[in-house]
Amino acid sequence: MNEESFVRKLTALFPQSPDVTVGPGDDCAVLDFGTSDLFLAAVDQVISEVHYTKETSPEAVAGKLLKRNVSDIASMGGVPTHALLSLAVNPMDEDWLLAFHQGMAKAAAHYGISIIGGDMAKLFTAGQSLSLTILGKVERGKLCLRSNAGEGDLLYATGEFGNSFRSGHHLDFTPRLPEARFLAGDFTCAMQDVSDGLLKDAARMAEASGLALKLDAGKIPLREGSTQETALTEGEDYELLFALPERLRTRLESAWNFPETKLTCLGRFVRGTPGQVSGVNEKLINTGYDHFR
Amino acid sequence: MNEESFVRKLTALFPQSPDVTVGPGDDCAVLDFGTSDLFLAAVDQVISEVHYTKETSPEAVAGKLLKRNVSDIASMGGVPTHALLSLAVNPMDEDWLLAFHQGMAKAAAHYGISIIGGDMAKLFTAGQSLSLTILGKVERGKLCLRSNAGEGDLLYATGEFGNSFRSGHHLDFTPRLPEARFLAGDFTCAMQDVSDGLLKDAARMAEASGLALKLDAGKIPLREGSTQETALTEGEDYELLFALPERLRTRLESAWNFPETKLTCLGRFVRGTPGQVSGVNEKLINTGYDHFR
Repeated sequence: MNEESFVRKLTALFPQSPDVTVGPGDDCAVLDFGTSDLFLAAVDQVISEVHYTKETSPEAVAGKLLKRNVSDIASMGGVPTHALLSLAVNPMDEDWLLAFHQGMAKAAAHYGISIIGGDMAKLFTAGQSLSLTILGKVERGKLCLRSNAGEGDLLYATGEFGNSFRSGHHLDFTPRLPEARFLAGDFTCAMQDVSDGLLKDAARMAEASGLALKLDAGKIPLREGSTQETALTEGEDYELLFALPERLRTRLESAWNFPETKLTCLGRFVRGTPGQVSGVNEKLINTGYDHFR
Repeated sequence: MNEESFVRKLTALFPQSPDVTVGPGDDCAVLDFGTSDLFLAAVDQVISEVHYTKETSPEAVAGKLLKRNVSDIASMGGVPTHALLSLAVNPMDEDWLLAFHQGMAKAAAHYGISIIGGDMAKLFTAGQSLSLTILGKVERGKLCLRSNAGEGDLLYATGEFGNSFRSGHHLDFTPRLPEARFLAGDFTCAMQDVSDGLLKDAARMAEASGLALKLDAGKIPLREGSTQETALTEGEDYELLFALPERLRTRLESAWNFPETKLTCLGRFVRGTPGQVSGVNEKLINTGYDHFR
């Protein structure tokens, strides 16, 4: 069984209470407590030898852990507010831990996030398994879901793709928070971030929206050192994908005020088998990062 | 540097926004969004070979992970509502993962908790590092903090102590949620749970309240196979400690309606060096579970 279908099988085990607007399956869960804003929550982790190496500084590890969670909040159209840390480490090296927490404090301050709690335990062997839960909020009119793309909508992406690991982008990326806030509500209500690979994440968005996707793979902006194939499949880009109603195209392209962030139309959501992507080499389909391989 | 002071040094790095009523350092963080209830959040983890063994069933691992978080919510006087899972596992064994999630679903349903999100990643080596973030709520009048014990208050405990690992209590315990709800507001506003050892956790409560503690160690109810020393220091009891104003003693003891849960007065909070505990063997002081040893 591949990751997608197995995770679906697992999450189907969990019924949701009435205050859960969106449960597992989007970038964040969405809770409705009857206040003016909706409440967002997500969890993501980084693991030594998987998401970083022994050469990565503790500050960079902390930054990556926080920023990939901020990217999840951004893709819902929201703003991050609070976070909790869960650290399993061995050895309990005080120098490393202090530098990690200093890096976390700096990154959290940058995004206005309060680190409100945490837990630290010893891992059974040398290495680190680090998790962060992020909380956030979003105005009801700005909430973006991956399931909200409409038939005929254009697929847009921010930034460039591919070669994230070797280039260091997976550590020094900037979550597209201001861009997402600019887009949410006014230009789109269908957005997600790219962590597991452009092709895979775009297909997820199409599938969640019950649509197929015609991709114009030749348009994908490539990060230096990347090919079209690696841009489609490698992941850890932390860019935004969003659906744009075609009537808003001119208005968006003239209003876009982020000169350092590319904005590219990559294709169109069309009627068809949900999640089916055309316009790319068949053999690339489903070759994004699969945790079960 | 011992764990207490090092963790204090780390958490001091994190400033808190005005909506954070209680930040790191209690069993849960407390957030005030201006609604009638306060919002609770905590994170706790279980790690293979540390918190359970290869012989522990996946359902029991899931139950322990959820219940130790429920115990944190209970000790604030609150009720759990939602949770997020963060799993780092190797191998990605589908049978184990399915059984774990089934166990989690069953335990969550028992407590009315919605599992609203999660992340699953591959650990760098064989083993498991599992984290759960719990969210909850508490009426403003029921919020219990470890810092709220008053001079002259009695220290009470639920249940028995010691021998948690060998007896299997660390897996099959029942979080004291109904007992905590019964106590909170009406009898106490100073409570915490015992996870790192009775002596250590009682000393934390005294220290947070700016008081010393006279312990009557002979009164500690011992779990079968436990000695007074192991009851004081082993941990993973998941019982409640709370401060009771003496004038409520008779009323509490006659109103206590949990025949299967012992209720014992273990001592008294007194003026003195904050966190100093008397009435126990000197050499036991600070011998609870320290993650840094």
